[in-house]
Amino acid sequence: MRVALLGLGLIGGSLARALRAAGGGWWVGAWTPSGAAPARALAAGAVDAAVGHAPDLLGEADLVVLAAPPLACEGLIGRLAGPWRAALRPGATVTDVASTKAGLERAALAAGLPWVGGHPMAGREASGFEASDARLFHGRPWVVTAPVGGGEAERVEAMARACGAIPVRLDAARHDRLVAGISHLPLLLSAILAEGVTGLPGAEDPDWADARALAAGGWRDMTRLARGDALMGAEIMTANADRIAERLRAHRARVDAWLGLLEAPGGPDPAAVRERLEAVRERLGD
Amino acid sequence: MRVALLGLGLIGGSLARALRAAGGGWWVGAWTPSGAAPARALAAGAVDAAVGHAPDLLGEADLVVLAAPPLACEGLIGRLAGPWRAALRPGATVTDVASTKAGLERAALAAGLPWVGGHPMAGREASGFEASDARLFHGRPWVVTAPVGGGEAERVEAMARACGAIPVRLDAARHDRLVAGISHLPLLLSAILAEGVTGLPGAEDPDWADARALAAGGWRDMTRLARGDALMGAEIMTANADRIAERLRAHRARVDAWLGLLEAPGGPDPAAVRERLEAVRERLGD
Repeated sequence: MRVALLGLGLIGGSLARALRAAGGGWWVGAWTPSGAAPARALAAGAVDAAVGHAPDLLGEADLVVLAAPPLACEGLIGRLAGPWRAALRPGATVTDVASTKAGLERAALAAGLPWVGGHPMAGREASGFEASDARLFHGRPWVVTAPVGGGEAERVEAMARACGAIPVRLDAARHDRLVAGISHLPLLLSAILAEGVTGLPGAEDPDWADARALAAGGWRDMTRLARGDALMGAEIMTANADRIAERLRAHRARVDAWLGLLEAPGGPDPAAVRERLEAVRERLGD
Repeated sequence: MRVALLGLGLIGGSLARALRAAGGGWWVGAWTPSGAAPARALAAGAVDAAVGHAPDLLGEADLVVLAAPPLACEGLIGRLAGPWRAALRPGATVTDVASTKAGLERAALAAGLPWVGGHPMAGREASGFEASDARLFHGRPWVVTAPVGGGEAERVEAMARACGAIPVRLDAARHDRLVAGISHLPLLLSAILAEGVTGLPGAEDPDWADARALAAGGWRDMTRLARGDALMGAEIMTANADRIAERLRAHRARVDAWLGLLEAPGGPDPAAVRERLEAVRERLGD
C-alpha cells in the first residue's frame, strides 16, 4: 500500500517510521508545508520519497494521511477539494490523525472527499519530527471513524495494525465527546492549574518563585500537558470547543461542591472527604 | 544522633532506610500504632530497634520524628504532651514529616513541646513501608519550620542532609500557602477531574467504559494524584482546608474566564487561545 503523508511532526514522523519498520510492502512518501522535514526524514531513512509539491505525491497514493493539527487539517481538506483535486488517484482514501473528528468529517464529506477519520490515541510531551518514534502507536487504540459515503476504512485499519495499534471504530461525534473528557479537559485543567499557581494572566504570582523550588513529582505530572505544543492545544480547544465547554461547566459545578465540603462550618469532615476520595480511586481502577 | 521514628509508612520507612544507609552514627528506633511495620522493618534491616511501646524508645532519642498524616500527627502530639511526656529525654527535639505545618506547630507549641516542623518534598503514587526507598529524598528540598521557643532546627537539618535532601527554612504559614498551590490544589483537581469523567458521585458516567479504553498518558498523568492514598489526601484537605479553598475559589474564577473564551459567539479565537497557552508554558519554564 502506498501512503502519502502530508505532515511530518511527532505523529506523522512516527507513522512514517512505523510503516517503514513494518515491512509488508508499505511505501511512504511525504510532503510538509515548509519542505524542511521531508528532506531530513529522507536523510534519516524514515520515508521512501519526499516531495516539495504535494500533487506529485497524490497520484501515487492509495491512502492520503493528513498529519497536522485540526485546523491545519481543515486547510488541507480545502486544498484537496480544490487545487489538488485532480491529482488524487481514483479510488484513493483520505484520512487524518487529528484529535477531533466531527468537524473534519463534515468538511471532507461536504467537499466530496473519500474520507475516513483517524485518531491514534498516543502522544508525548515533546513535539516535532525529532521526537518521532516507530513504536509510539504500539499497543495503543487507533480510532477509525467511517462515515457513510466516505473512503475505505479497511485501509486505515490495515495501516493502524501495521503500526502495532488496535483499530477501534467509533462515530465521529461520540469520539469527540469521549476525548473531551479523557484528553481535552485534562489539557485545559493542566493549563488552568498552571495559570493559577504561576500567576497568569497578568503578573507573576508572588509565591511562584519560592513555590517552584519546592514543587515535586505531582506538580510535574499535573502540568505536563500544559507544557505541550500550544498551537496544537489551541486548535484542539477551537475544534472541539462546544464539548470541552460542556465538560468544563460540569467541572465548575463539582468545584462548587468541593468548596462546600472545604468551607463547611467547623471545617471539613475528614471522613466524608476520605470517602469521596476513596470512591474516585475505586472508579478510576488500575 | 539517635532518632525515634513514630510511623513507618512510605516516608517513615524511606527515612529509616536513608539514615541507616548514611553511616555517620545515626541510630534509628521505630514504633507504629499497629506494631506490625517495625517487626518487618527490623527483619529487613531498615531500623536498629523496634518497640511495641513508644515510651520505651523516647528516652533514647535526641530527635523524635512523627511520620504520619497530619491528623494522626495531631494525635501523636497529644500523646507526647500527655501520657508519653515523662518519657521524653530532656533536650530532645520533636519534628514531623507531614504536608501541613501551621496547625501542628500551633498544637505542639501550645503543649510546650520542643517542636521543629519538617516536610520533605518527595513522594510517590504507592504508599506504605513496602514502597519505601533510601533514595526518596535525594536532591529534594526538605522544608524546616523553626518557631521561636521550639526545638533545635539544626538537628532536623542534619537529618535532612544525611538523607541527601536540601533543608529549606520557611515560616509554617508560608509553607502551607505554597504547598496549597503546588501540591494540594493539584491533588484536589486530579480528584475532581477523575470524578467528572468517571461519573462520581452517584452513578458511573455512561461514556466512562468506552472512554477509559482510549485514555492515554495524559489521562494517566492527570489522575495519578487521585490514585494516591485517600486517608492521606483527606487529612491534607482537612488540615489545610482554608488555603486550599482559597486556591480553589481562584481556580473557579479562571474556569469562568476560560468558559468565556470557549463559548465566545462564533467560537473561540484560536490565536487568543494559543497566546494564553504559550504564556502558561513560558511561565512554567522547564
